[in-house]
Amino acid sequence: MHHWCRSLLGLKLTLSDSGRRLTFNFNYSLIKLKFILIDSQQTQSIQHLASKMVYLDYNATTPLADEVIQAITHSLSVAWGNPSSCHDIGTKANHVIKEARQHVASMIGAKATDIIFTSGGTEGNNWILQTAVQHYQKAFEAKIKSIGDMDVKRNKPHFITSNIEHDSIKLVLEHFKDQEIADVTFLPVSKSSGAVHVEDVVAAVTPSTVMISIMLANNETGVIQPISDIGRRIKSINRQRGDNQRILLHTDAAQAIGKIGVNVEDLGVDYLTIVGHKFYGPRIGAVYVLNPGTSTPLYPLFFGGGQERNLRPGTENTPMIAGLGKAAELVHINLDLYSSKMQEVRDYLEEKLESCFGDSVCFNGRFKDSQRLPNTCNVSFIGKSAMPGHEILSQVPSIQASVGAACHAQDRPSHILLAIGISDFVARRALRISVGRETTKQDIDAAVQDLQKLFNKT
Amino acid sequence: MHHWCRSLLGLKLTLSDSGRRLTFNFNYSLIKLKFILIDSQQTQSIQHLASKMVYLDYNATTPLADEVIQAITHSLSVAWGNPSSCHDIGTKANHVIKEARQHVASMIGAKATDIIFTSGGTEGNNWILQTAVQHYQKAFEAKIKSIGDMDVKRNKPHFITSNIEHDSIKLVLEHFKDQEIADVTFLPVSKSSGAVHVEDVVAAVTPSTVMISIMLANNETGVIQPISDIGRRIKSINRQRGDNQRILLHTDAAQAIGKIGVNVEDLGVDYLTIVGHKFYGPRIGAVYVLNPGTSTPLYPLFFGGGQERNLRPGTENTPMIAGLGKAAELVHINLDLYSSKMQEVRDYLEEKLESCFGDSVCFNGRFKDSQRLPNTCNVSFIGKSAMPGHEILSQVPSIQASVGAACHAQDRPSHILLAIGISDFVARRALRISVGRETTKQDIDAAVQDLQKLFNKT
Repeated sequence: MHHWCRSLLGLKLTLSDSGRRLTFNFNYSLIKLKFILIDSQQTQSIQHLASKMVYLDYNATTPLADEVIQAITHSLSVAWGNPSSCHDIGTKANHVIKEARQHVASMIGAKATDIIFTSGGTEGNNWILQTAVQHYQKAFEAKIKSIGDMDVKRNKPHFITSNIEHDSIKLVLEHFKDQEIADVTFLPVSKSSGAVHVEDVVAAVTPSTVMISIMLANNETGVIQPISDIGRRIKSINRQRGDNQRILLHTDAAQAIGKIGVNVEDLGVDYLTIVGHKFYGPRIGAVYVLNPGTSTPLYPLFFGGGQERNLRPGTENTPMIAGLGKAAELVHINLDLYSSKMQEVRDYLEEKLESCFGDSVCFNGRFKDSQRLPNTCNVSFIGKSAMPGHEILSQVPSIQASVGAACHAQDRPSHILLAIGISDFVARRALRISVGRETTKQDIDAAVQDLQKLFNKT
Repeated sequence: MHHWCRSLLGLKLTLSDSGRRLTFNFNYSLIKLKFILIDSQQTQSIQHLASKMVYLDYNATTPLADEVIQAITHSLSVAWGNPSSCHDIGTKANHVIKEARQHVASMIGAKATDIIFTSGGTEGNNWILQTAVQHYQKAFEAKIKSIGDMDVKRNKPHFITSNIEHDSIKLVLEHFKDQEIADVTFLPVSKSSGAVHVEDVVAAVTPSTVMISIMLANNETGVIQPISDIGRRIKSINRQRGDNQRILLHTDAAQAIGKIGVNVEDLGVDYLTIVGHKFYGPRIGAVYVLNPGTSTPLYPLFFGGGQERNLRPGTENTPMIAGLGKAAELVHINLDLYSSKMQEVRDYLEEKLESCFGDSVCFNGRFKDSQRLPNTCNVSFIGKSAMPGHEILSQVPSIQASVGAACHAQDRPSHILLAIGISDFVARRALRISVGRETTKQDIDAAVQDLQKLFNKT
């Protein structure tokens, strides 16, 4: 136990180190502040890191904003009560959750009552798809009861999705198909835009279609999908279908939030998935459901203590919820700034790559018929000394990027690039480079320089 | 933006306040430490709180240990990478998770590969019960295929549980029963011990019994259930049943961990639920599964990115996992100390209540035929001026306790107390008082004094 103590200008400062815990107390008259160590490094090694390592994998995950860390840390200490408890410390936690829910709602133009916290995007996506199956069964049950048709087995819900979805959509729907729980149409995206065609979506609708689930922006190419157009078309189709046969619209907005404006009314969705760690928030998420359980069906995945209005039981993860709220608040306030900064740096990166490597690079996902996220660059190195993307990354460890979804089949070409019509040769040589709020042009210069060194060497 | 800066004995200290964020930097030569504000209060109000409010609801939730807060906060800052990413920052996160998994395993005498992180106890309990249903269906499918019996509908899995389980077991099994997914035996606990009789469990076994799920210790009475005796009996029954008809044993150890020794081998369980926030850890959990997916069946609830060996996909909540690991490490090292301290204070509370209130109090769940958690006291005030438990708490807000599970039907008698044979009159007048690691005899004195004031007044 080391202890350092000073009195200075009437302030009492103590710094104590017990084992691995280092706390700092600041006492002045009646005011007490307690700090806890969050980072320690030798400045030399910090400088060393800064000049060498460049993180360019913000689509895999983002660091937490300082404000988010503070919201979490504060809540860990002062809002640890059980939000269901009636006493003071419980009420405090409850208040933190209420505030966070409002921030998450405001970020996407929703009502607070339409937000339900989840453990993350995977739970959210699985939940929404499962809900559609259960809803169809109930709606269909009502229908067969009324018409006396007993051929239940043949009638299955039908889903429409794209062929570029995240595994937490793709694998669930493949499982539904394999297990004969549902029929699924996996729509190919257009090779001229990297996006689904709205007409293809409409054409795929059948009387059994219960849900359309298409991501808002792709994680590898950044291509933004035409959800609001789909929303408008589906709304008009739904006017002709009974309430029990209404087609539900879901979008996984994991990669879009914090990068482009996301407004549930503009999109016309019934469900939307929110993932904290993609926008400088913590590793939890939320789902948006328009009037959950009333105008939009929602069946709980879990049974338990009644939290989240019985829709998602389990004692609330207050600190993480506080962090998610803070991350949402930051996006709500600063989106334009974040977005334009990222775009400036991403565009600088692409110009720099073009000017340094000329015809030896090509960009995947840059289409004139569609828009991209402002932070994503998918580039293939196809020159004479070309090598697979994962080899580039292993030879240039200073660039912390990826070849696609985190560690997802590093040595195979991305199925998403193949889906947008990229050849196997080019897809194998791709890097996904995604910039963040703090990425600078100097970071880009350092990364491009290291790539130049590699290709000059080989 | 306020800024305070001092150089002192070669140290440079800066304290800066930008909006709501207060950070403190400590620079000395090459060493940089960064602190973040976690708590601020006027000492006067701290003293005020300390003399007035006594938290006695540790079974609802616990505060986080300082070491746990530090582990989380540290991880928020330095291990924020995606654990599936191949680069440095991802590897760092992966290492944090590996270490935490080992600590959780060691705490309960398990192997690290038997621990799977979840979002909490509710997910864990729901998952294990759902797994049993799926396992039964697969095992039964194999059986009907071999004997050509097609009467599938009549054959349902059978569960055995107690009538004092947490809602995340009780409501799932009630749902299974309602939806004709499973048959369920809800065994009444003995009125002379508050625990299930091992013989009743054995007698309830049928050829379709797929799982026995009984909690390790009750959250309201603290009564410890005879899981290891059940484990031994089931083991010998299982020797006579084929592998496909093996009875699986699960215990929800939410309330036991951190209070009594919990060892999976001694208990003889196949599954065990772990809940961080009951032992000074964060709001996540884990399940123990003996060789998951091989010797013990485990079917994922979610599909997605392949995390947790495909058993529980979703990007890992590294900071919370780090905190859970730290909380487990603390329990592993200090259990005897925690346990004896809590017991001393709880016993002091009960003596004090007896000496102050005599026949006007009675203790629920104190049986000579069973053991209790060392921290739990369930007491009813049955004297002349008796009032319902929730009224006592609303009149004495300084005592932060509960009448049962957090905010669970405050105005009705606890079904758990009724289940152990307590009369409606006494059950309505019950308080659940649960002490923690830092609860002192002075806290107890203050609480009892406030109760005395209330009853003298009325």
